[in-house]
Amino acid sequence: MLPEYPLNLGTARSAIRELFEYGKQRAAVVGAENVFDFSIGNPSVPPPAVLNETAQELLLHEDPVALHGYTVAPGDADARSLIAADLNRRFGTDYGPQNLYMTVGAAAALCCCFHGLTCPGDEFILFAPYFPEYAVFLQGAGAKVKVIPPEIESFQIDFDALEAAITEHTKGLVLNSPNNPSGAVYSAETLRRLADLLRDRSAQYGHPIYLISDEPYREIVYGAAVPWLPDFYDNALVCYSYSKSLSIPGERVGYVLVPPTVEDWELVYASVAGAGRMLGYVNAPSLFQRVAARCTGETADLSVYAENRRLLVDGLRSFGYHVVEPAGTFYLFPRTLEPDAQAFARRAQELDLLVVAGDGFGCPGHVRISFCVPTERIRRALPVFEKLAQSYK
Amino acid sequence: MLPEYPLNLGTARSAIRELFEYGKQRAAVVGAENVFDFSIGNPSVPPPAVLNETAQELLLHEDPVALHGYTVAPGDADARSLIAADLNRRFGTDYGPQNLYMTVGAAAALCCCFHGLTCPGDEFILFAPYFPEYAVFLQGAGAKVKVIPPEIESFQIDFDALEAAITEHTKGLVLNSPNNPSGAVYSAETLRRLADLLRDRSAQYGHPIYLISDEPYREIVYGAAVPWLPDFYDNALVCYSYSKSLSIPGERVGYVLVPPTVEDWELVYASVAGAGRMLGYVNAPSLFQRVAARCTGETADLSVYAENRRLLVDGLRSFGYHVVEPAGTFYLFPRTLEPDAQAFARRAQELDLLVVAGDGFGCPGHVRISFCVPTERIRRALPVFEKLAQSYK
Repeated sequence: MLPEYPLNLGTARSAIRELFEYGKQRAAVVGAENVFDFSIGNPSVPPPAVLNETAQELLLHEDPVALHGYTVAPGDADARSLIAADLNRRFGTDYGPQNLYMTVGAAAALCCCFHGLTCPGDEFILFAPYFPEYAVFLQGAGAKVKVIPPEIESFQIDFDALEAAITEHTKGLVLNSPNNPSGAVYSAETLRRLADLLRDRSAQYGHPIYLISDEPYREIVYGAAVPWLPDFYDNALVCYSYSKSLSIPGERVGYVLVPPTVEDWELVYASVAGAGRMLGYVNAPSLFQRVAARCTGETADLSVYAENRRLLVDGLRSFGYHVVEPAGTFYLFPRTLEPDAQAFARRAQELDLLVVAGDGFGCPGHVRISFCVPTERIRRALPVFEKLAQSYK
Repeated sequence: MLPEYPLNLGTARSAIRELFEYGKQRAAVVGAENVFDFSIGNPSVPPPAVLNETAQELLLHEDPVALHGYTVAPGDADARSLIAADLNRRFGTDYGPQNLYMTVGAAAALCCCFHGLTCPGDEFILFAPYFPEYAVFLQGAGAKVKVIPPEIESFQIDFDALEAAITEHTKGLVLNSPNNPSGAVYSAETLRRLADLLRDRSAQYGHPIYLISDEPYREIVYGAAVPWLPDFYDNALVCYSYSKSLSIPGERVGYVLVPPTVEDWELVYASVAGAGRMLGYVNAPSLFQRVAARCTGETADLSVYAENRRLLVDGLRSFGYHVVEPAGTFYLFPRTLEPDAQAFARRAQELDLLVVAGDGFGCPGHVRISFCVPTERIRRALPVFEKLAQSYK
């Protein structure tokens, strides 16, 4: 007598979490330093010092009734103004607080967009490899999900497959650049071509096709510029989270940006906010709305990620792995040395090397290596990656 | 091309918020001290000192990567253990962390229960007067809503109406005691009778009927004991929020308790948690999970509410209003002096007395007075309540 979908979600075992639990058990047997866990995408560097200072200062000096009280549903007006000003400074835009809807992290931002846009029969398109929860959130919103197969040479977009997939039922596409798990950043050329295609099809079908851009890794890049999507396409909604940039994933603060270029943007904004209300999202956590807004644009010290990335890319290539260098994120997504990524991951696991098969991301033949770990773990793991490669020779 | 329900929710004007905005505009004209705003249920007393101290201490001494990192989806295990221990101490129960699912406030707790329980065709029963968002959340979960008319002599339960309303499609009932807006606390006698009825009907229909108990006001009582619902009925789920007891409504921390007496409690828990996942509730805010758990059972200084309640009850009665004395909450729900509560509220508004008509709570003929305000406002407002009463003589 319980509904099938949430019950299945609640009882399903998570492959990533099982791997993580296994790692902890193994650590108790062989020592933590001999288990090379690359399974979990949890930021490993502390938040920037300014974050703790800001939180302390607010707790000491602000009226606690206001500080911990309800904010209006769209979020504290000052916080939204600060965030809009930061976006305007960085991207030459002209957003105001009325374009921002503060959310309980990016997951909530996505759910508010999906529930706020989906009408019966609507389809959304995902690009493999993709973060698996997108499909969970979309199904929860009653949308049909179509997946575009991966383009594994550069992890840009397979446009032939995309052109075939878009129909009059397409309500939107979910972009994630920098991408979890591939680390790819969509180039300006990719985005121009995508925007052209969507404008054509929107005109052909007589309704807007929305781009929902999930950008929690926007600031975690290694020299690459991340093109600002709304510059390319009018009907783009941006979902953001401070989880990765400020290393506060547990605090759950993010936003939906509905730019004024979006067709009927005030109605779209209202529908996103109405979805938030319907789903029980009263307001984003009040203290951390203020903290994140005052630290917006700052990042944790990302130099550890940069060093880890360099070590892994160079090391794995030297052992014969095929690696597309990640332009951003803290993930590496190399090809596996046999077609069956799950078999490869199991063989790695026998060496206490914990990596996640790409199958769950819609991209078999690859594994995800989360390099948000202490650099020492990478150094100690490299000979094990070499041993694994040799076992295939 | 936008879905009707969230769009309507997002564009609908909130009567309470409009009143609140009106109050701010009037204050600019006639002075804040001459506007008597009793519209908003926002705690007016600061959190207990221990809350700020606990937050400061965690920020100073805990590893920030762990403190601000993801917790497991059910919530930090230590936090859940502390909360379970507090419940066990107070209610003589034997709960463990596995019975608690930490949520982003009570609204999220309710949404997780509703989405985690509702199958197609299921009905939920609300008791008027009721917090209007219950109906919003239930409709969002696809449940049909039935409302039991109010029993306005004591705001207990109209059992004749309830017996007629329960059918084989009844999946659950939502209880809210102490009640917003009536302030009533259900007596042990009411709960015994309710439990007997539900056990009979569950047996008759061959499936459990769940009680979903929304208890954010559990600690905000004036001498009354709030009976512990799971002592009366096995299939009861408890939703809680720290918003009111700790005066932190903006921080969004609460929980769902699934007691081990619930039939197949582990599956029910899984379905509630699966619903949380589906709706994008990754984890409850991590810092405030720890803060709330360490302060669980504490309350803000509620003496202001007690004084406000005494002044209002005695004052209004002396002016001829019919008032059921609220056993808990910071709301008073007197009868209006004409049958049309909205007309009464408008006449009050002409005197700069802002109260909310009961119609939106499913209980016409009454107004809600939120007395979570400075006592001085009550003292100054009493002569205006008297003037309003005289205008009806």
